[in-house]
Amino acid sequence: MCGIVGIVGKSDVNLQLYDALTLLQHRGQDAAGIVTCDGDRLNQQKANGLVRDVFRARHMERLKGNFGIGHVRYPTAGGSGPALAQPFYVNSPYGIAMAHNGNLTNKDQVMEEIYQQDLRHISTDSDSEVLLNVFAHELLVQHKLQPKAEDIFTAMRAVHKRVRGGYACVALIVGYGIVAFRDPHGIRPLVYGKRETDKGTEYMVASESVALDVLGYTLVRDVAPGEAIYIELDGTVHAEQCAENPSLAPCIFEHVYFARPDSIMDGVSVHKARLRQGEHLAEKILRERPDHDIDVVIPIPDSARTAGQTVAYRLGVKFREGMVKNRYIGRTFIMPGQKQRKKSVRQKLNAIELEFRGKNVLLVDDSIVRGTTCKQIIQMAREAGAAKVYFASAAPAVKYPNVYGIDMPSAEELVAHGRTTEEVCEEIGADWLIYQDLEDLVASSAEGNETIEQFDCSVFDGKYITGDVDEQYLEQLHAARNDEAKQGKGSQGSL
Amino acid sequence: MCGIVGIVGKSDVNLQLYDALTLLQHRGQDAAGIVTCDGDRLNQQKANGLVRDVFRARHMERLKGNFGIGHVRYPTAGGSGPALAQPFYVNSPYGIAMAHNGNLTNKDQVMEEIYQQDLRHISTDSDSEVLLNVFAHELLVQHKLQPKAEDIFTAMRAVHKRVRGGYACVALIVGYGIVAFRDPHGIRPLVYGKRETDKGTEYMVASESVALDVLGYTLVRDVAPGEAIYIELDGTVHAEQCAENPSLAPCIFEHVYFARPDSIMDGVSVHKARLRQGEHLAEKILRERPDHDIDVVIPIPDSARTAGQTVAYRLGVKFREGMVKNRYIGRTFIMPGQKQRKKSVRQKLNAIELEFRGKNVLLVDDSIVRGTTCKQIIQMAREAGAAKVYFASAAPAVKYPNVYGIDMPSAEELVAHGRTTEEVCEEIGADWLIYQDLEDLVASSAEGNETIEQFDCSVFDGKYITGDVDEQYLEQLHAARNDEAKQGKGSQGSL
Amino acid sequence: MCGIVGIVGKSDVNLQLYDALTLLQHRGQDAAGIVTCDGDRLNQQKANGLVRDVFRARHMERLKGNFGIGHVRYPTAGGSGPALAQPFYVNSPYGIAMAHNGNLTNKDQVMEEIYQQDLRHISTDSDSEVLLNVFAHELLVQHKLQPKAEDIFTAMRAVHKRVRGGYACVALIVGYGIVAFRDPHGIRPLVYGKRETDKGTEYMVASESVALDVLGYTLVRDVAPGEAIYIELDGTVHAEQCAENPSLAPCIFEHVYFARPDSIMDGVSVHKARLRQGEHLAEKILRERPDHDIDVVIPIPDSARTAGQTVAYRLGVKFREGMVKNRYIGRTFIMPGQKQRKKSVRQKLNAIELEFRGKNVLLVDDSIVRGTTCKQIIQMAREAGAAKVYFASAAPAVKYPNVYGIDMPSAEELVAHGRTTEEVCEEIGADWLIYQDLEDLVASSAEGNETIEQFDCSVFDGKYITGDVDEQYLEQLHAARNDEAKQGKGSQGSL
Amino acid sequence: MCGIVGIVGKSDVNLQLYDALTLLQHRGQDAAGIVTCDGDRLNQQKANGLVRDVFRARHMERLKGNFGIGHVRYPTAGGSGPALAQPFYVNSPYGIAMAHNGNLTNKDQVMEEIYQQDLRHISTDSDSEVLLNVFAHELLVQHKLQPKAEDIFTAMRAVHKRVRGGYACVALIVGYGIVAFRDPHGIRPLVYGKRETDKGTEYMVASESVALDVLGYTLVRDVAPGEAIYIELDGTVHAEQCAENPSLAPCIFEHVYFARPDSIMDGVSVHKARLRQGEHLAEKILRERPDHDIDVVIPIPDSARTAGQTVAYRLGVKFREGMVKNRYIGRTFIMPGQKQRKKSVRQKLNAIELEFRGKNVLLVDDSIVRGTTCKQIIQMAREAGAAKVYFASAAPAVKYPNVYGIDMPSAEELVAHGRTTEEVCEEIGADWLIYQDLEDLVASSAEGNETIEQFDCSVFDGKYITGDVDEQYLEQLHAARNDEAKQGKGSQGSL
Repeated sequence: MCGIVGIVGKSDVNLQLYDALTLLQHRGQDAAGIVTCDGDRLNQQKANGLVRDVFRARHMERLKGNFGIGHVRYPTAGGSGPALAQPFYVNSPYGIAMAHNGNLTNKDQVMEEIYQQDLRHISTDSDSEVLLNVFAHELLVQHKLQPKAEDIFTAMRAVHKRVRGGYACVALIVGYGIVAFRDPHGIRPLVYGKRETDKGTEYMVASESVALDVLGYTLVRDVAPGEAIYIELDGTVHAEQCAENPSLAPCIFEHVYFARPDSIMDGVSVHKARLRQGEHLAEKILRERPDHDIDVVIPIPDSARTAGQTVAYRLGVKFREGMVKNRYIGRTFIMPGQKQRKKSVRQKLNAIELEFRGKNVLLVDDSIVRGTTCKQIIQMAREAGAAKVYFASAAPAVKYPNVYGIDMPSAEELVAHGRTTEEVCEEIGADWLIYQDLEDLVASSAEGNETIEQFDCSVFDGKYITGDVDEQYLEQLHAARNDEAKQGKGSQGSL
Repeated sequence: MCGIVGIVGKSDVNLQLYDALTLLQHRGQDAAGIVTCDGDRLNQQKANGLVRDVFRARHMERLKGNFGIGHVRYPTAGGSGPALAQPFYVNSPYGIAMAHNGNLTNKDQVMEEIYQQDLRHISTDSDSEVLLNVFAHELLVQHKLQPKAEDIFTAMRAVHKRVRGGYACVALIVGYGIVAFRDPHGIRPLVYGKRETDKGTEYMVASESVALDVLGYTLVRDVAPGEAIYIELDGTVHAEQCAENPSLAPCIFEHVYFARPDSIMDGVSVHKARLRQGEHLAEKILRERPDHDIDVVIPIPDSARTAGQTVAYRLGVKFREGMVKNRYIGRTFIMPGQKQRKKSVRQKLNAIELEFRGKNVLLVDDSIVRGTTCKQIIQMAREAGAAKVYFASAAPAVKYPNVYGIDMPSAEELVAHGRTTEEVCEEIGADWLIYQDLEDLVASSAEGNETIEQFDCSVFDGKYITGDVDEQYLEQLHAARNDEAKQGKGSQGSL
Repeated sequence: MCGIVGIVGKSDVNLQLYDALTLLQHRGQDAAGIVTCDGDRLNQQKANGLVRDVFRARHMERLKGNFGIGHVRYPTAGGSGPALAQPFYVNSPYGIAMAHNGNLTNKDQVMEEIYQQDLRHISTDSDSEVLLNVFAHELLVQHKLQPKAEDIFTAMRAVHKRVRGGYACVALIVGYGIVAFRDPHGIRPLVYGKRETDKGTEYMVASESVALDVLGYTLVRDVAPGEAIYIELDGTVHAEQCAENPSLAPCIFEHVYFARPDSIMDGVSVHKARLRQGEHLAEKILRERPDHDIDVVIPIPDSARTAGQTVAYRLGVKFREGMVKNRYIGRTFIMPGQKQRKKSVRQKLNAIELEFRGKNVLLVDDSIVRGTTCKQIIQMAREAGAAKVYFASAAPAVKYPNVYGIDMPSAEELVAHGRTTEEVCEEIGADWLIYQDLEDLVASSAEGNETIEQFDCSVFDGKYITGDVDEQYLEQLHAARNDEAKQGKGSQGSL
Repeated sequence: MCGIVGIVGKSDVNLQLYDALTLLQHRGQDAAGIVTCDGDRLNQQKANGLVRDVFRARHMERLKGNFGIGHVRYPTAGGSGPALAQPFYVNSPYGIAMAHNGNLTNKDQVMEEIYQQDLRHISTDSDSEVLLNVFAHELLVQHKLQPKAEDIFTAMRAVHKRVRGGYACVALIVGYGIVAFRDPHGIRPLVYGKRETDKGTEYMVASESVALDVLGYTLVRDVAPGEAIYIELDGTVHAEQCAENPSLAPCIFEHVYFARPDSIMDGVSVHKARLRQGEHLAEKILRERPDHDIDVVIPIPDSARTAGQTVAYRLGVKFREGMVKNRYIGRTFIMPGQKQRKKSVRQKLNAIELEFRGKNVLLVDDSIVRGTTCKQIIQMAREAGAAKVYFASAAPAVKYPNVYGIDMPSAEELVAHGRTTEEVCEEIGADWLIYQDLEDLVASSAEGNETIEQFDCSVFDGKYITGDVDEQYLEQLHAARNDEAKQGKGSQGSL
């Protein structure tokens, strides 16, 4: 997952971009980058690391300019290699920088086309660089000395025809302005807002509304699926639908885990969706075990806290912060002559014994992916003296890989892939395991905005909304992941 | 506040010390250091920064040795200047390194004595360096080629006679072992534990029991006030009471704010103490406003969450995570030509509007110190649409500075200093403000261990347990803080 | 001035490129960069600093590939701003990286054309980026999926028609090979060579032959003015004259100061040229003052040592190393509250008093540019007790700025600009000043290769070989230098 | 070898110390350090690296104070491990920092004594730390609250009785001033000087007079062997002979290789000594081969240039700069899968072929140590086409290790150890080898100051002036060197 932001302001936007990236940091902690435009000059700073480490005063001083874009990166699953920090840049036409959240499912084919037709070389394995070059190419072929909104939208229409997958992007055109767009299913989120200043109106596009809120912008609306919004340097805003059959199907995993609870996405409050997840989960528990013997509900912090509270409330059982999260995580060192010690989950989570001793506890987590952490947590609960350890997942069983930009393991590594609930329960060592039903998860989100007709739930049901993901693709994905792991491929050095 | 740890192991202790410091990192994020002893050779690494940034693989490889000590630093209020990263070291006698948590109240006098009598120069403003030199001097004057336990305890007795204040320490004597000790009132916490390995028993002393738990040590007991424990390199443990009139009076602010909830200090579970704080607070609310109109209880994350839950439960009111904490904090840049922008509290905390809109909310925090953050939070709650904003503090009004090692402002900067509860309420802009009663706070802790006769509650009642803190001392403290602020005094460069 | 290198090898070329850049480091100490190509993947590392500081083991490990190019940078006078470290890169067509030594005199016009016709945005002020984009554009318009030698030469012909100035370049085309070319007057040097290995023949192009020598390559020949050499990945070498009226006129300042003495350029041994400079200079001294009273000849180390020896030898006067050069230069710090202290020349050069005391000394330097250092040296000689201080310059009076890539001040800052020899003598405080005659300087070089019909001697005679440098251009140059100085313009952050 | 400096000034001495260390950098490039004293506060910065890399503006700002000392380090042969950057520091008594050039030959014994008698622990393997502790102990036992000159001299007398070896030192006593002293034979150099400023007289002590010269100080005189000079903070200077039988015997290798030519040591101009070395060497050549066939004399730069000139002059043969030294040396990388390539000497030195081709060349170097570089240079001369290669060493055969602070290999690694001149000649592959005679070397230096009765020439004749160096000591030295090499012992991490 990644976070993106773009601002067209009335004075230097460097500090705003920095603050926005800090607010989006939960979407990616691997790398960060900012590009600003000052006249016909681009300024940039990008590197691996957290926002607070990547940008120093000397960088900020250089990042002059009234419009710019930013990116925080999380390694994506779909790509065959971690890419360089974004934004990426091409100098033809005009000079364009782009920040991308998502994953293209037909990257290889498009990369080949781009080379064959336009002789454009892609320096990295990154689908983001491919997307940038497709956009650049489609803009170049119109060969306008000064691109107008219509030229940009024409290019966008061509882009949507050529690429498949999930993508929310913001592009900066040197000397002109910022373009924001979202794939035809709106799989990845993107909002825009504005704020009034003494010098005029400023505009921001961002992955999540929290960036707007905190920086004093008012949410205007979500960018529609397939829509492109072009904000000129002078503040003129153009918007146009550029996809042929747009149809909103946002990624439901944002509501389960990724998004900040205080964000509102496609009209749905993430916080409220999670409260509802807890309620639905509790109903299922009561249906399955009307006479359950749960003494206490304990959430796995931080993401399961909200759903955990409504579970406990609906069950009428005590809710306790029985697991403590350590905010400070150390490195894992391999000392010569010592064998590598696996960092125990206890370095990250510790059980408060007196909340477990002799009790039947229901642990609530947002989801179960590999199942390894989950297994260790249950073991920890038993060591803390729990009589029985029940485990509830606010999401259904994760059985399929994600191909739209979430860094999730391939199918073989998912504990629920090819296993029944009972088998997973045994695998993780719980006394009882309960998963949210998919229809309940969807309902939890849909109640927030009834106009959303569908969600991308592919990790749960294997139905990939873009229609182009087949067995072969997933196998390639799996092979690519393995290759990378073997080769320790990294991109820090590539161009 | 600071965190300290010492280990006498059976193989290299570097990784254990590292992990322990990570677990104690909440006690200090300013600097970190480790010293290990390998034969007659000391190895050390210390620097400003988080544990994960201070220690690299190359440092760990050098930190060889079967015993060692570590420290994480938080700037202390009592000292007249931020000190260098600890541990500190002197080479006479034997080579001694020391890590210290606390503050000496007679530092200036002792520093003078040390110079006059022993010609020992103190390189920094740190009371920790003073304490180390007093200990070293008292050990030197016995002039033993090989120090025995009794020599060390003799030195400790002299130390307790010369210094005043709160101190929990661990010292390493090159070639011999580790000494742990606590001031005669046990103001600062210190526990020790052991674990069995194939090679024999290993011992750990640490500020909090969580470090023992996570690393697989069993808590043996707290170090008693005035007691010294000497663990020889071969694992022999000596313990002796070295103070004349020891009397346990631990700092109650550890239970309010500093300690991790999963720690047990002097027999008291911090988590349970906080649950009880919430219960007592709710009782007071019900006494004062039996017919209150609170719609929802919202804790200020993370420290007030536990008490907030029991407040809500006892009041029978909904408990909601209505404030979201941003885990990623950016720097504050001062750009040329721009005026410095105060980082809004909203960068750290953001309100979920729908939990506030139209409701009477009770915000619960652990305590109120300067009142400035509190005021901004209340303002944020109003902007989010709260009908009424009530504020409850799980601790009584903080009216006096701390002189035993907690970095707290001087009296003038404390919002409750010289103000009634009503005046504070007005100052912070709440519709109603309720403070815990001191007797209830004490009861919340004392219920956990009825043998504790008293606590140091000086920040609430101005009664300083060491008996040597008068107006003059506090005024000097205040003046020193101001001087430093003016001079931007830092110690990074001093020896 | 800059240094460039390109290698097409039979195994990884990273270490060879590194060593070659170290050998060319005297041509530029500001920044260094290497790009290598491994299959269709580019790897690069570039940064400000010396070669030994820019490349670390982790970079070298990433710089895989059997062909690659490198660059060391010295700020160029002609450009309106220090540029980013080279090589530069564009991804369309094919992916091309380029390293450039020289300066374009029609940069502004070409930059404008490139934008108008090809919409290519130049991210920096660097003429090198302009040159790269012209080449890339001319290659792109042929739109070949696989570029052949002829396509590359066609592009080169177009490049020479569009750009003016001095340029020696090496470009890497991803997946194909390396192109080396030199401007139609061969102003900047470029040689190529080969060596046999077990795996086949390897080729190197470099600014100076010393890089070939030391790495075991045999010098094949200089790249001819206007010629392009394309070395394919498999080792096939294509060479073609691509300029319409090529005519060799190499920069004579290379022989005076820049080049290493052990280099051979366009058939001329730099060492020998300098020996001859000394001889000619001595002849002139003897002509002007047949009965001179010179006691000792002292060279200004290191560049004037060779000419100084022949001066002394021909005069029959003792030659002494009376000035000691400090190899270790410190930074200049500006302390708060202290006024900046100008680093005295004595930090760099110190006189050995006993070689000066009471003697008539002839100081020999390679040239006199600003005259400030020269003035201080003469002062130092007097303080060391010299009876008389004569000063000889192995080059004629420098009166005009350089526009072909040497970082030299604008005319106003040149001590000899608008001054007679007598006036310069007075300005620098010498008792007698003698400049080499231009015809003698030319003869010193021409004797090494009689086929060279002319040299670019523009800094001495103001005749710019490219014919497009007029008063207006020089004024713009001067203004640009001043602007930069005022704005402290730097490009480190720009793209 | 190391370089030391101490200044008692009238305003901040940080910049002066920095410049002085830059001027002494040729004496050590491994590490650098400065300690200044401001009131009762010490400030320090030290680290591995060159002076220009170790000190940044932020360090300089912290290094406040009107007196201070500095050090540049070269690894010493005598010690059993590279030591931490100096100055070292102890806090008892007073706070003392010390910078040391030399080596103690009875370090192990003294270290043991110090521990037994004073319980002082030495943190490193460094004899410098031992020396500091001996001085500190001898000062402490007098137990004066304010040390007077006589107390310091009393301590110095005791120091000279306890330690053996070569040492030139400068120590800073917090709050009081600076003490400079030299061992009873004055093996290592030390001078002092003064300069007048508006605020009063400033004093500097330094390893070489060049630091005085360049910074505007007038050389007062050398510190006498066994003498101590105490300069109080107010500028009062006390000097006293503290050794029982002082007798000057300076290290002659300073004149051969280490010292800057523009330094004057114990009244001898290093430059002149080297000129005379060349003359004596030429005489011997003429004696041995009156009808020699030498065509050209070529010095190995930089150290042999001065002697080479007089050799050529006396022989009446051409002198040519036929070997070019590369000022920029790269790192040696070990790439995975590639075998380590030994950096060829050609990376550092390159022959100008036309000065060698067909000629009988006489190469002149200052000395021959291991012989490996020498061998490669001769091979290079042959490859450059020399008809015959003769080699002359301005110093006699180096046959014994140095124990007074010069980092020289143990006997087994010296090419002349146990070999006749003919055997060495064969080993290095020369056509003829000629060594300076020891009496001529001594005469070259002694002519500069006839009052010097003897020099330490131990590396040539095996006579160690301190009288305590026997076979056993040298064997231990050899063993220690080997152990270190095996263990890769480094000191960066030790205290």
